[in-house]
Amino acid sequence: MASRRPALRRLATSSGGGPLGKLQGDSVRTRSPNIGLVALDGKPNGAGRVTLVGAGPGDPDLMTVKAVKVLARAEVVVHDGLVSPAVLALAPAAARRINVAKRKSRHSYAQADIDRLLVALARQGLEVVRLKGGDPFVFGRGGEELEACRAAGVACEVIPGITAALAAAAGAGAPLTHRGAAQAVTFVTAHAAGGETPDLDFAALAHPGQTVVVYMGLSKAGEIARRLIAAGRAPSTPALVVENASLPGERRIVTDLAGLGAASAGLTGPALLIVGEAMALADVGDAASTPSIQLRQGFAS
Amino acid sequence: MASRRPALRRLATSSGGGPLGKLQGDSVRTRSPNIGLVALDGKPNGAGRVTLVGAGPGDPDLMTVKAVKVLARAEVVVHDGLVSPAVLALAPAAARRINVAKRKSRHSYAQADIDRLLVALARQGLEVVRLKGGDPFVFGRGGEELEACRAAGVACEVIPGITAALAAAAGAGAPLTHRGAAQAVTFVTAHAAGGETPDLDFAALAHPGQTVVVYMGLSKAGEIARRLIAAGRAPSTPALVVENASLPGERRIVTDLAGLGAASAGLTGPALLIVGEAMALADVGDAASTPSIQLRQGFAS
Repeated sequence: MASRRPALRRLATSSGGGPLGKLQGDSVRTRSPNIGLVALDGKPNGAGRVTLVGAGPGDPDLMTVKAVKVLARAEVVVHDGLVSPAVLALAPAAARRINVAKRKSRHSYAQADIDRLLVALARQGLEVVRLKGGDPFVFGRGGEELEACRAAGVACEVIPGITAALAAAAGAGAPLTHRGAAQAVTFVTAHAAGGETPDLDFAALAHPGQTVVVYMGLSKAGEIARRLIAAGRAPSTPALVVENASLPGERRIVTDLAGLGAASAGLTGPALLIVGEAMALADVGDAASTPSIQLRQGFAS
Repeated sequence: MASRRPALRRLATSSGGGPLGKLQGDSVRTRSPNIGLVALDGKPNGAGRVTLVGAGPGDPDLMTVKAVKVLARAEVVVHDGLVSPAVLALAPAAARRINVAKRKSRHSYAQADIDRLLVALARQGLEVVRLKGGDPFVFGRGGEELEACRAAGVACEVIPGITAALAAAAGAGAPLTHRGAAQAVTFVTAHAAGGETPDLDFAALAHPGQTVVVYMGLSKAGEIARRLIAAGRAPSTPALVVENASLPGERRIVTDLAGLGAASAGLTGPALLIVGEAMALADVGDAASTPSIQLRQGFAS
């Protein structure tokens, strides 16, 4: 724990600067002009706030209009590794950018550090944007950051984003729900703390007629497929792997549940596994972009 | 079936008009300038296309940038009843607007009619935007429309949208997934054809530690709650009802599973039911807007 504090202190106490003149008035809360309350860095004391912003899947055009507006007035952007450079470029040039990517490196931040950092920055009176890939509330740990802000009395708003599943499905032309094929869709994550076996409800996910989207499941794809099949899901169930959804390097692989592990081998980027009868519709023929597509392992629609 | 055809013919054969001069070049396919191919309505024959666009939950600022761009070049907008007037206003004034709301009225369209309408309009060479509340591929029946276009050889692209669950959760500050409280989130619909009992997998949805989002469940809220409890979900499980998510008339009710039916009584707008331990975080204290919020039926966080 002690090792986290120096980094936090270093980042949280430096001045943010920032283009106050660029603030857009339509949805910005009134700040007190009382100069008696101004803190050392020139901002009204305590008037900072945190906005948890869904950056969407990577293509800046898949951000919401609101997210773009909020990002354009940021004084500090705290972002993770999944936020694309093109999205980050929408923040003001003068805004500080803090990468808190939770990579397995000595420069990464634990979640509690990020929570404290957001609160500390807001308490400096800064307009803090916490920019998260996809949607803040779908495997984005936004709830923990929101709780930290609430506990500290820091104003916090949440702007939703296009979660990767929606972008991957739209790009592939494969609906997450589909009459007669998918009555429900479930989002799960295979990213268990410590790298152990993902704790999924395989019996429930094995029922036919539903779509299962696995976030962060690339390295566990083979195991997940085996356990779904063991629980009763047909090995021939159509499956789709999408790497780098919406980005120029997007790659889609159409396969089936039996072939999911093999299809995922060799992929390294952020990827989704989507399993379900409706994935039989996956196609790139009508998509505007033309990512590489491969058919593997005897998939028959 | 015969009764549907006159309406389809009436709409599909009238001329679209439209501001070709406003077309934005960055992602528009090249149209042949060959005047020999121009059809009666002044458009190159067969150069039309359909874009299925997610309009998001209602607030135009929660549309994606891409959706706004595509809508701005529409020549015909085919929309359903959930698309808000503020969103429709983003289409060119000259664009035709066709409301195909599937209400229980004699003016409504069956899905097959809508499929044929889209194909017919595109075959007139028109830039057709099929505008759908939320996301086209989450209970939006976009898959059926995409299939119809593919079968007819009409180009069709899909632009994802903020599905209501994401907007409702963000607005309420209640994460759909949350460490220790919600490892998965499932979207289901209670809207069964013909009004019979919804065919949901109650045994799977009754497991704790997951969030269940019910679309179109208002009139079935009491029954769904009873069946979830009968299947083993705790009556004290936190629940949230959100009517008109993201719109000026948004209304949130924080309750529990036992109180879900009573909490839903009297609501009429499009609404979501969200059930799960993480809904204990639902709050409006930090939200930018201040919708009415009510606590009912002994909910204790």
